[in-house]
Parts: sequence; C-alpha cells; structure tokens
Amino acid sequence: MAEEVDNVSETPKSNFVLKTPKGTKDYDPRQMAVREHVLKTIVECFKRHGAQTIDTPVMELKETLTGKYGEDSKLIFDLADQGGEQLSLRYDLTVPFARYLAMNKITNMRRYHIAKVYRRDNPAMTRGRFREFYQCDIDMAGQYDPMIPDAECAKIVSEILEDLGLGEYVIKVNHRKILDGILAVCGVPAEKVRSISSAVDKLDKVPWEDVKTEMVKEKGLDPSAADMIGHYVRRSGGKQLVEELLEDEKLCGNATAKQGLEDMVLLLKYCELFGISDKVSFDLSLARGLDYYTGPIFETVLKGYTHDPASQEESVSVGSVSGGGRYDTLVGMFDPNEKPVPCVGVSIGVERIFSIMEMKAFAGSKIRTTETEVYVISAQKDLVEERMKLCALLWGAGIKAEHSYKKNPKPLDQFQYCETMSIPLAVVIGTSEIEQSVVKLRDIKTRKEREVPRENLVTEIRTELATPVD
Amino acid sequence: MAEEVDNVSETPKSNFVLKTPKGTKDYDPRQMAVREHVLKTIVECFKRHGAQTIDTPVMELKETLTGKYGEDSKLIFDLADQGGEQLSLRYDLTVPFARYLAMNKITNMRRYHIAKVYRRDNPAMTRGRFREFYQCDIDMAGQYDPMIPDAECAKIVSEILEDLGLGEYVIKVNHRKILDGILAVCGVPAEKVRSISSAVDKLDKVPWEDVKTEMVKEKGLDPSAADMIGHYVRRSGGKQLVEELLEDEKLCGNATAKQGLEDMVLLLKYCELFGISDKVSFDLSLARGLDYYTGPIFETVLKGYTHDPASQEESVSVGSVSGGGRYDTLVGMFDPNEKPVPCVGVSIGVERIFSIMEMKAFAGSKIRTTETEVYVISAQKDLVEERMKLCALLWGAGIKAEHSYKKNPKPLDQFQYCETMSIPLAVVIGTSEIEQSVVKLRDIKTRKEREVPRENLVTEIRTELATPVD
Repeated sequence: MAEEVDNVSETPKSNFVLKTPKGTKDYDPRQMAVREHVLKTIVECFKRHGAQTIDTPVMELKETLTGKYGEDSKLIFDLADQGGEQLSLRYDLTVPFARYLAMNKITNMRRYHIAKVYRRDNPAMTRGRFREFYQCDIDMAGQYDPMIPDAECAKIVSEILEDLGLGEYVIKVNHRKILDGILAVCGVPAEKVRSISSAVDKLDKVPWEDVKTEMVKEKGLDPSAADMIGHYVRRSGGKQLVEELLEDEKLCGNATAKQGLEDMVLLLKYCELFGISDKVSFDLSLARGLDYYTGPIFETVLKGYTHDPASQEESVSVGSVSGGGRYDTLVGMFDPNEKPVPCVGVSIGVERIFSIMEMKAFAGSKIRTTETEVYVISAQKDLVEERMKLCALLWGAGIKAEHSYKKNPKPLDQFQYCETMSIPLAVVIGTSEIEQSVVKLRDIKTRKEREVPRENLVTEIRTELATPVD
Repeated sequence: MAEEVDNVSETPKSNFVLKTPKGTKDYDPRQMAVREHVLKTIVECFKRHGAQTIDTPVMELKETLTGKYGEDSKLIFDLADQGGEQLSLRYDLTVPFARYLAMNKITNMRRYHIAKVYRRDNPAMTRGRFREFYQCDIDMAGQYDPMIPDAECAKIVSEILEDLGLGEYVIKVNHRKILDGILAVCGVPAEKVRSISSAVDKLDKVPWEDVKTEMVKEKGLDPSAADMIGHYVRRSGGKQLVEELLEDEKLCGNATAKQGLEDMVLLLKYCELFGISDKVSFDLSLARGLDYYTGPIFETVLKGYTHDPASQEESVSVGSVSGGGRYDTLVGMFDPNEKPVPCVGVSIGVERIFSIMEMKAFAGSKIRTTETEVYVISAQKDLVEERMKLCALLWGAGIKAEHSYKKNPKPLDQFQYCETMSIPLAVVIGTSEIEQSVVKLRDIKTRKEREVPRENLVTEIRTELATPVD
C-alpha cells in the first residue's frame, strides 16, 4: 500500500496531466453497450426472485463504516474535512444496507442494489480490479428458517452465470462456524483466529507449504496445530464430506462446528433441490476476510480464468466473480436495542464479467452504440429545414431518428454515416420529393429505395422495422 | 454557506447518530419505482435522438475541476489527502464530458450521461435540492452549422416534459453574447460583467428595484447604466423581440450582440420547425452563472411550480427542471493545442421531477415495488422442499416467482402476502396435489382456483399472465 505522495498545489499546474484518478477509468459507448447488457441480465434475475431495489448515498458518515471491515478498513476513501460531518465513500453495499435497515427499523426485506463502491486498493486494471467499481448485490433480511434464503443466493449466482453464458464455474461454500470450530479444535488461540483464517483463505492461490509457513513463522502458530488445520482445510467435496465430518468426534465435540455442519447438510440439500449440486463445492479453505460474516460464506470462480501464480496479488483470485455470505449481527451493530435482523446475500463482481464479455463482444460482430432507426438525408442543398421537419414528425411518432447537424452535408457522407452506425433505414429528400410530398425510403443494407407518400411514412417505417432483413 | 464545524474523533462516538450525510437521502423501493419510470422515459428520448452513452468516474483530479465553475467552485466536495492524487467529486457531468473528449481526442459525439453529481450547497430537501443528486445530460460535440444542435436541445427538453406529463412549462432561451453585448453598450466595465450578469439572473425571483439596488449599491455600477440595463433585460418574447432588437442601432453597433441576435433568429426559426415555438421564450434576463457558456443558454421552468418569494434562496428557481447552453471553449481548456470542439447540451434536473412524480404516484393507486408473477404456497406443513422445486421450475422458465422463506408458513399469511404485494397468481400445493402431480393455480384478485397438471404449469401460467384481468 506504499503510495507516492503528490504535492499538488491549489492552482492548476502547468504540467497538468489529462487523466482519470488512479484506479478509475472512463467507459466508452461500446463498453457501455456491453455493461448495459450484463446489468440488464442481472436485474432480470434479481426481479425474477422477487427483489425490490433501494438506493443509498455514495458517501456515508465515517462512523457508519468504522469497525466493519477488519484489516481492509485502511482501504476506505475519506472525504476532506471541509467543515461539518466526517464522510467516507462506501466500501461495499452491505454496510449501507444494514444501516438502512436499522435506520428505518425494517426487519424484513429482499433488496437488490446496483451501484459503485470505492476502495483505495492497488489497482490491477487489466484484471478488472479498480478503485471504483460496480457491485450488484442481492440480500435477504429477516428471521427465516435455516438455509432457505441462503440456498437461493447460490441459485441466483448460478442463474446469472448461466444467463450470461460465462462457461464453467464453481460456487464454493463454507461456513464461518465450521472454520471457527476447526481452528478451535486445532488449538488456535482466540486472538489468532482471524489472522489464521486469512492465511487459510490463500489456499486457492498458494501451496499448503506456504500457508503453513505463514501460520508458523509469521503468525507464531504451533507447527502441530498448523498440521492439524492442514488436514481439514485442504479438503473439498459435497454431501459425503459433510457426513464424514459429522462423524469426526473431535470436531463435532465443538458445538459451533456441529451447528455449522448441520447448516451445511441443509444448504447442500436445498442446492440439490434447486438443481445446482454439480456447481456447488463445499470448500473448507474458503474463509473470506470480512469481519461481519457469521454463517455460510460463498465465493464463485470461473473455471476458464485461473489465477496466475506469477503475480503477487493477495486479494481474491482473479477468476472470482461473486462473493457473499450470512451476516446475522451487522444490522444489530447499528441498533443494539432492537431485535436482531439476520441477513444473507451475495454480490456479483461485475467488473471481471464486463472484461470477459467485452473481449467476447469486441471479437465478434459490430456492436451498435446507438439505436437510431432512421437517418434523414437531404440529397440537395438548403434542405436542412425540411430535414428538421421530418425528424420532428418521426420523433413525434416515437421513431428513433437523426439527421446531419450540417446545413449542407454531402450525400455520400450521409449514406456513409448510416453504414458506419448500422442505421437500418434512410429517408431521402430532394426538391422534387418535397414538391410531390413524398420521400424516398431506403434500406441501407440492400440499398433498395422506394417512393412513399409523406402521410404514409410513419406506417411504412414501422412495417419495415418490424420485418427482419436477411 | 456558514456551516457548523463538527470535531468528530477517529473512534466511534458513543452518541452515534444513525443517519445519511447532510443533504443526502436513501430511496426506498416505492421511490425507486418512480425514479426508474422517469429515467426510462428520459433515456428513451435520448436514444430517440441518436445519442450514445458513456460513464466517467465519480471523482476527478481536483485540477480538472479548477477554474470551471466561477464562484460556485467553493461548493466542490474534495477527497481527503490520503497520499497520492488530490481528488474531488464531480460537480456536474459537463466538465467530465469535456475532459473525456479532450483526453480521447474526440471531436464529434452526441452523448448522454445519467449519473449523480455532488455539491456542498445548503440543502433544501423538501424542494428537491440535495448535496447528492442525479443529472441527466445530453450534449452534442462537434463543428456544426449554427443553432442546428442547439434547437434540438430545446426539442429534447420539450419531448421529455411532454412524455412525463408534467403540465405547462416554458423553455427560456437567451444568448451569452446578447447579454454581454447589452452590458457592454450600457457601459459595464469588463471586470464587472460576470457579477452584473449574476444580478440580472435574479430577475425571475426578485423585482427589478432590488436587482438595481444590488447593481448600484453592492456592485458600484453607475445608476444610469443600471437603468439602461433594466430597459433591456426586463423584456421577453419571441421572434418579434429579436427583430426589434436587431433594429436597435446602438445594440447592433456591438458586434458581439449582433452575432448573438443573428443566432437567436435561427434558433427561434428552428424551434418553430420543431413545433415548440409556443413553449420557447426569448428571455433577456436569463444569465446562468457558470463560466463556461459561450452561446445560447437554456432554462426550463414548470409553470405550476412557481418560486416562493418568502424564501431567501439564491440558486435556481424551484420550478426550474432543466438548464444548459453552448460551451465552445471548455474542451479547449484541457488541450489548447488541439482544434476547438464546440459543444451544446442540456441537463435535466430530475430530482425536482422525481418529487413531483412521487407526489402524483403516491396519491394514486398502489405502486408495485416487485414484479413477482407467481407465489408458491404450501397449504400443509413440511412442504418447503416441494415449494423450492416448483420455484426452480418457474425460474428456469423465466417466470418471476417467490415462496416463503419459512419452513412452515401459515396459509393465510401466504395469501395475504400475495395481496399486499399485488402478486397476480399463486401456485398452491398440498400432499394430495403432490401425489397426483398437479397444482392449484389461483388468481389472487378473483380468488378462482383450478387444478393444473405439473407438466402444463408453465404454459398455463404464461397464458394467465398474458390475459389481462378485469
């Protein structure tokens, strides 16, 4: 996190650099077309599952975020103290949701929220890691029966990845209580639980030997305790693994672990009912850093996009496109006097998905960045006013139309614009058309033209647009 | 702008207040439903006019914003200096657009951008003035013939207000060059032009006498110069007014004013072609504060929502729902060596529109905040797994479905939920239905139920949903 300190003066520097802030970027119309498609698919899925949406400010009181993110708190963007409240940019959408529930005393809500979040992380732009990025969250708040909404979270992730056609993926699940139970029975002292957890979490990227070294050398854990942890956390599987662990007397002697394993039985059964068993893997190394998780935790990895071991990244694996889990005590942190509001949710990390979809889209056929249906063309000089009248007619009929903003554009330039922008139809006028109160309606692809009386123009255009070419 | 300084310590205070930052608010699902409708209408209009969209970061280098907003620069939100670049939150979408064009050397683009902007203003929440608020901008960049895109900006505002059904409105237009010309011929010294302009701009809210007093007493203008200004700026009208002014020899002796008036002739003619003459008023008092305008300026006011003269607000009139204008030199400020990129655009101030639409919507019939089509109900105990299987079936068919997250919810609670949430259909199962591989399909409004074989369920639901009830 060492970063160059840059003493910028109040007045513009002469060597002013034209750029966006570190770790942020602009999105051009082609990228926006891809993003709109991805976000629309996600919103459709969220709505299919009956979710409502809310919006919260991009900034929160600094205190609202304090104590929620463990070690990651250092990555929070603060606003300058300009008098008044101390503010920070939101770090995720989960804490603002919890704050919203507590503030409005809502005990029961399934909400989705799609918005940007901010982290002063070391950006890795090419792999979709930014300081400003979209999150797409769905969360279920309410006192419900175990694992019913939790399993639906996994189902939602699965539906979105299928709908987007992103190829093979695995939804890793674990349980905070199972992990905590394992660490307890292996003799990890309470004050080391979080730091040992975070070492375990790296098992998807580095070999066990390195993780063990970190535990023993850096974190001062007894080597035999580390070995015992290694015996557990290197395992992953399905129902059978849970059953095996339920027969592990030592582990089940720990009440926390036992409760976690019982949840896991239910969770895996419900995933089976939802038809996603083959996508779900019970992975004992999954830990996730955030302080607020209390139950099942999720992380979804695209199989086609594995981690590059040459890189030294410590954050989520590059193939990770979704994370989440249960957080039963977070809302209560805002209002300890109210009855608790248990929550579970998942977040879709769309930046990585955007990158993949962009690569696919840009490799394929042309992406349209406008939806223009008709271009109004003048074949002779001094007809700009006629073009404007025709545009007004088309707009009034709800038809997407453009014309050149030049008074006397060259006919060729106008036709070429239609081809460049993939506009399907052109309305062409010259003085003779105006005299006869007709226009030429031209199909840009086939280059076929026919004369249409003005009074029929809207109807004819609608018919043409409804008829697919080729 | 005096604001209480609040010394908040780094650690959470014991008297922690659960709130959003000053001048910001959350939006609940009902408000979001209204916002989605408004934004959709606006996007449809922008697309009808052939616009592309881009996105830019919420923060910009502080230097990017420096020197663009005149006196309003004091309202810019800065980020804390945490090492690295000095950043600010965007104040509008226009400067980021200009920065984007310059950075990417784009000379030609019609783009829309819908995003939130940030101003450390004194909030007036009940009248739709916030510190975080949406702007919906469309801008046309490029070297075109005079007033062609400018008139389309007015047309776009008119279409949006018509589409939203917001009642009577007036699109006020003026021209920076006409105003500058008037001030010049009235003998206002160059260094006083901006401050006298801003006094003129208040004429829609305070009587001329007060404006004159401000010019003479506060700004030290000669009373006879002020009177001469008053002779001009209190006028508004249409084509005729422009013609009259074109015959004013003194004014037309000023080349700047003359050029502005010639633009205005064209602009009003094009507005006539677009069929919006009756909505457009040439208003000589319209000034608008921003430094970057160079040509026509626009401001649109809803007639049903007039200014309350009892309030002491200095900002835009409360009825104002759109502003904009031409800014031919802003892009060049980022890259003086490149050829200039003239631009014109308008911004829809949707917060005020949201408030009005909310009042209307909440007064009328119930607003649905979800789109759920089917609720899966179990009439007996221990059928949660059957409900889950049915939900998975429906989701797989693209049908929006929910069920209770309780293992054994009461039948009455389930039916009541459907009514509360206006869900049209319920699928009801009991053990006998499961044995016979059927379900009961129930119309929630009419309470009619019929038995449907499971294999036909999806088709039957689709038919029901396609048939309007009542």
